[in-house]
Amino acid sequence: MKKIINDPKNVLDEMLNGFTYANEDLVKRIEGTGVIYRTFEEKGKVALVSGGGSGHEPSHAGFVGQGMLSAAVCGEVFTSPTPDQIFEAIKKADQGAGVFLIIKNYSGDVMNFEMAQELAEMEDIKVEKLIVDDDISVEGKRGVAGTILVHKVLGAAAEEGLSLGEIKKLGDELVQNIKTIGVAISPATVPEVGKEGFELEDDEMEYGVGIHGEPGYRKEKIKPSQDIAQELVNQLKKEFSWQKGDRYCLLVNGLGATPLMEQYIFINDVQALLEKEGLVIEFKKVGSFMTSIDMAGISLTLVNLVDSKWTTYLNHPVCTSAWV
Amino acid sequence: MKKIINDPKNVLDEMLNGFTYANEDLVKRIEGTGVIYRTFEEKGKVALVSGGGSGHEPSHAGFVGQGMLSAAVCGEVFTSPTPDQIFEAIKKADQGAGVFLIIKNYSGDVMNFEMAQELAEMEDIKVEKLIVDDDISVEGKRGVAGTILVHKVLGAAAEEGLSLGEIKKLGDELVQNIKTIGVAISPATVPEVGKEGFELEDDEMEYGVGIHGEPGYRKEKIKPSQDIAQELVNQLKKEFSWQKGDRYCLLVNGLGATPLMEQYIFINDVQALLEKEGLVIEFKKVGSFMTSIDMAGISLTLVNLVDSKWTTYLNHPVCTSAWV
Repeated sequence: MKKIINDPKNVLDEMLNGFTYANEDLVKRIEGTGVIYRTFEEKGKVALVSGGGSGHEPSHAGFVGQGMLSAAVCGEVFTSPTPDQIFEAIKKADQGAGVFLIIKNYSGDVMNFEMAQELAEMEDIKVEKLIVDDDISVEGKRGVAGTILVHKVLGAAAEEGLSLGEIKKLGDELVQNIKTIGVAISPATVPEVGKEGFELEDDEMEYGVGIHGEPGYRKEKIKPSQDIAQELVNQLKKEFSWQKGDRYCLLVNGLGATPLMEQYIFINDVQALLEKEGLVIEFKKVGSFMTSIDMAGISLTLVNLVDSKWTTYLNHPVCTSAWV
Repeated sequence: MKKIINDPKNVLDEMLNGFTYANEDLVKRIEGTGVIYRTFEEKGKVALVSGGGSGHEPSHAGFVGQGMLSAAVCGEVFTSPTPDQIFEAIKKADQGAGVFLIIKNYSGDVMNFEMAQELAEMEDIKVEKLIVDDDISVEGKRGVAGTILVHKVLGAAAEEGLSLGEIKKLGDELVQNIKTIGVAISPATVPEVGKEGFELEDDEMEYGVGIHGEPGYRKEKIKPSQDIAQELVNQLKKEFSWQKGDRYCLLVNGLGATPLMEQYIFINDVQALLEKEGLVIEFKKVGSFMTSIDMAGISLTLVNLVDSKWTTYLNHPVCTSAWV
């Protein structure tokens, strides 16, 4: 394992200290926890809280700030945060209008966030939640890169002053229209494990690998970007059954070790295919937003923008460390 | 070579198309060239132009936009752009108040930018230039990550309306106070070459490697982040001879394949050392800004903020794809 770290046991703590230091104008950390919260407050508005295991940087702490998350709960690498820490984040985030939890669809996360919700409700904090399951690659859909678009849209809605119930309704509709699929060309190494999480030959890639290295749906010899784009667009097309003229949001996401050079080449190929399909891309974004430590690979997310308000929310100005 | 690309010969063209597509609200490309320019114009203000070989994404095109560069000229990977393309960029960028060239200290870049300057002057465009040589690791100092801080400070100054002469004076003073040193833990692969640019053993790192894989000053077994931070801070201290209470800007830069996790851990270690030195860090930033394709490693840049105006310029709001 070749990494710029110290004791693998201290990765989370040191990383959060570094993150908080680098962004001290935007965020603070609740001492001794994995809770990062924004210094900016909006009394009387709904607070968004997300989180999960670490290793997906800049997710989720990088999206804490004005117009997106109120707080992020960071568990150990690839490990769900505990209910008591999520509860701490809820208490810190609440500004009197309730807290909305954005949870990626992993059993540990779902269980722990729900337990925290119960703890909060016992203290009369109103809590609603949304489970993001945008990954279409395998059964039992996982929450992946589409989650950051949920942060963005709902964050803008919360800032606009929507109620907890309205945000719940918006989130439910939004998440049904977000789908993601990815490809890995090299595996990630969890610091405390010290070796690669799965195996790929030198000339091999795997479609549908999860952001914790969960198995995908097919291994093959590595193909040109155009062919990878075609495969991922085909899979998304099956799910969406789109029509010419439909409006979409496009997100190309690097998985951690993939340079921008490859991400730009890939989005160029995706753009050509979507244009051929006659889709109208109203919003697009490229970068490494939902990563898997040092995995190399890419994911492609599309959102069917059935409501033009969603585009407005995507374009709403924000102030966070990770969303430009 | 495992990359998400098509024909290695088309990397530059496809990457620039993808970049321009992804950021079409901010930038345009001069058809058939490597010139990326901003759609935003400020008549009567000095225009900043930078560039160089590609492979350093998001540098430099990612810094084109309001408050930073007017245009970036992107050569083939690790290859200087031609004088005629730089000349095209100068002509496109000029808004009547002259053009300021920010050049990284490589002989090809310096020669080609100077030739372009001559071409522009023959057409009565006023041109001044600055050569950035922030890398302290070896003799014949190269231009590396500090260059983006030059973009930022001078970009704010240009927007504020400083004249070409004033920007030249500011740039000359600034660049003497910027110093960078880095470490590589794995080499980059140029797509057209297809194999790694230099060799490192599985447990080895190299201090002072350049952003094109130029040899550094020492190879050793990979060390903990704290030790790497100590080595780099020691080297910078020798150059700056700082005193307690001196004000500095701190930039931790990922070299391409290094995840944010490691960058945050590293900045945490650097922060502790600089605090012990008694330095006042007035501005800090972490992320992958000046990369070397898929090289893994990190660089550390410090700027001695001898003029408080520089801090104001660093904090001046911008609108680019790569500087949040």
